[in-house]
Amino acid sequence: MDNFTYQSQTKVIFGKGAQADIGAEVKPFAKESPVLIHYGSGRVKNSGLLGEITASLKAHGISWVELGGVVANPRLSLVKEGIRLCRREQVSFILAVGGGSVIDSAKAIALGVEADENFWQDHFIDMKPVTEALPLGTVLTIPAAGSETSTGTVITDEANERKLYAGSVVLRPRFSVLNPELTMSLPDYQTACGASDMLAHIMERYFTPTEQVDLTDELCEGAMRSILKNAPLVIADPKNYDLRAELMLAGMVAHNDILGLGRDGDWMSHDIEHEISAIWDVAHGEGLAVVFPAWISYVWQEKPARFVRFAEKVFGLTEGNDEEKVIDAIAELKAWYHSIGLKTSLSALEGVSDAESRIPVMAEGAVRGGVRGSLMKLTAEDVEDILKIAI
Amino acid sequence: MDNFTYQSQTKVIFGKGAQADIGAEVKPFAKESPVLIHYGSGRVKNSGLLGEITASLKAHGISWVELGGVVANPRLSLVKEGIRLCRREQVSFILAVGGGSVIDSAKAIALGVEADENFWQDHFIDMKPVTEALPLGTVLTIPAAGSETSTGTVITDEANERKLYAGSVVLRPRFSVLNPELTMSLPDYQTACGASDMLAHIMERYFTPTEQVDLTDELCEGAMRSILKNAPLVIADPKNYDLRAELMLAGMVAHNDILGLGRDGDWMSHDIEHEISAIWDVAHGEGLAVVFPAWISYVWQEKPARFVRFAEKVFGLTEGNDEEKVIDAIAELKAWYHSIGLKTSLSALEGVSDAESRIPVMAEGAVRGGVRGSLMKLTAEDVEDILKIAI
Repeated sequence: MDNFTYQSQTKVIFGKGAQADIGAEVKPFAKESPVLIHYGSGRVKNSGLLGEITASLKAHGISWVELGGVVANPRLSLVKEGIRLCRREQVSFILAVGGGSVIDSAKAIALGVEADENFWQDHFIDMKPVTEALPLGTVLTIPAAGSETSTGTVITDEANERKLYAGSVVLRPRFSVLNPELTMSLPDYQTACGASDMLAHIMERYFTPTEQVDLTDELCEGAMRSILKNAPLVIADPKNYDLRAELMLAGMVAHNDILGLGRDGDWMSHDIEHEISAIWDVAHGEGLAVVFPAWISYVWQEKPARFVRFAEKVFGLTEGNDEEKVIDAIAELKAWYHSIGLKTSLSALEGVSDAESRIPVMAEGAVRGGVRGSLMKLTAEDVEDILKIAI
Repeated sequence: MDNFTYQSQTKVIFGKGAQADIGAEVKPFAKESPVLIHYGSGRVKNSGLLGEITASLKAHGISWVELGGVVANPRLSLVKEGIRLCRREQVSFILAVGGGSVIDSAKAIALGVEADENFWQDHFIDMKPVTEALPLGTVLTIPAAGSETSTGTVITDEANERKLYAGSVVLRPRFSVLNPELTMSLPDYQTACGASDMLAHIMERYFTPTEQVDLTDELCEGAMRSILKNAPLVIADPKNYDLRAELMLAGMVAHNDILGLGRDGDWMSHDIEHEISAIWDVAHGEGLAVVFPAWISYVWQEKPARFVRFAEKVFGLTEGNDEEKVIDAIAELKAWYHSIGLKTSLSALEGVSDAESRIPVMAEGAVRGGVRGSLMKLTAEDVEDILKIAI
């Protein structure tokens, strides 16, 4: 087991009607100046959620400004607009209302307000530590990214087709409201992409080079089995509160770092996917369904015992030799993606064209011109081969 | 799944040499006045741990006072002495160095300093909410109680043979240092009692009346399997760092509430055990080994499916009908206690005499003169019957 330091400040308020007294949660952070309510599409307005939230803020004497328009793969341009707005209005707190994209956008704004003009270069490209950020809270409407309790944010610089990560404990939300009722109206495709994303967050912790991590192996395997079981059930019965609750809780647990305590993760699948969605703007969860089976089939022989265990414990595969088990596990994983409506090959994704010619550029981007990965160190050539399997 | 609010502020610093810069962790809480170092026996002095800690405090310019003498089933009398000391010295922070008893004692002092003279009556007997406490941190030397990240404290009023609980998020330590190396010199008996305690913390969350809690069921089962597997391995190989790390992490995860999210627990086994150790001062972990099998055999028919699942998933029992599976699971559980050197009947415990005559008083104490429990509501008569099975 590796040494680690773990701290998660986020207060999680989970359950039916959990957003009812949101003003009381915001109040301790609200100063004389307004808070920023950040959101995406009209769904939060049309559903009445935004009205409910602003009514509660009003009841607690809190003023606000709004910035909507966050899209999937949230854009750097909107982050910059948010930073300007926060400075102009002297915003002291950001309330993100939406899914992972909205929360990630809010985190990047929170980071940028406390940084200087070079924040993108400093913290996303050069990965300098982030030590200050505006406090933020969330009302989650899409279980997927785990951003509601995580340290990270992923932002797309659309002008340069780059999708990059920044992370820090100061970016963990101060509170997150998780009400499964708010997810009942999600389209199946978004539910499926969310399940894929949370499964990936666990697989990335599970496929570790660290030895002797029995407890967290068990926790990861249990959480993976639960997602594999419940995601198709949710899609078959989308108004089932209890099933929605399972998936919402799983999304949080998958990425709040408890499952990764004392173990190194391997985040190359996420990084490779980011290259794909940076170019074609595909849904992150479906991009992961494309990358992960290809990544496993390319790297498994680097650490066969771990992938055999994955086959046995997560998919219950006990027949055959090691290679057969891993091949069967990859087939089971793909079948699960298909069962929830996701495609597993790059060229089959909507909007993707001429993928082969972009492979070298994506590969270079994923390894950032060097060698990256932890279970297996990957060169750009390795990533090219993985993308060729995925195509 | 039940609604819940979850927040854990504790910064966990885990690994080899984790206590090296303890002064830096204390520093943000230390004011002009000294911090209180609270500990138990001479082991922390003789091992050099206390010297290492005070050297680090000194290096950071932090002064301290000391209060040792905490014993298993920590005493109210020492808590009161600690409160007087803290007030006299205007202590602003408590550093607990030891196991769960030391940490619980420190929490009770932290609570008492901010409360009035009636703190025992108010918060332990009448269970009034605890809203204020001195901040505290811990250096853990015994993985067991999970007090290093939990909200609770259990204190024994030795004069009145009462062992009672108080809890609040403000009692969670601000930081906890978990170095598995510090546990390598533990006697086997203490290691075993610790494993029993952490297993109980999970069983108490697992045996819930709440329906549809699949994810946390999976997490609980995985953590239980890991403890059942690793505790005997640790006792066979006590200097194995990685195995010690598994058990130390399990003790924390078992009681930081992650495994109980959205589910009601049933804490009657703990409460019944507290009656036993309040009278005879037996080790809590061994008391639980006595109570839990008896409790399961008395209550399982209240919710058979849950106990059958326990038998199947935790002990891998697939043969026989429901009753046979549960009976086999109880036998397996007892065999595990025996394998780590713990007894499973009340009258066999060291120092216990004339147990039968004390049963009515213990039963009344466990239900506090009413009806308690959640998976099954127990009357004093029920608890009498459980204790008769346990005897």
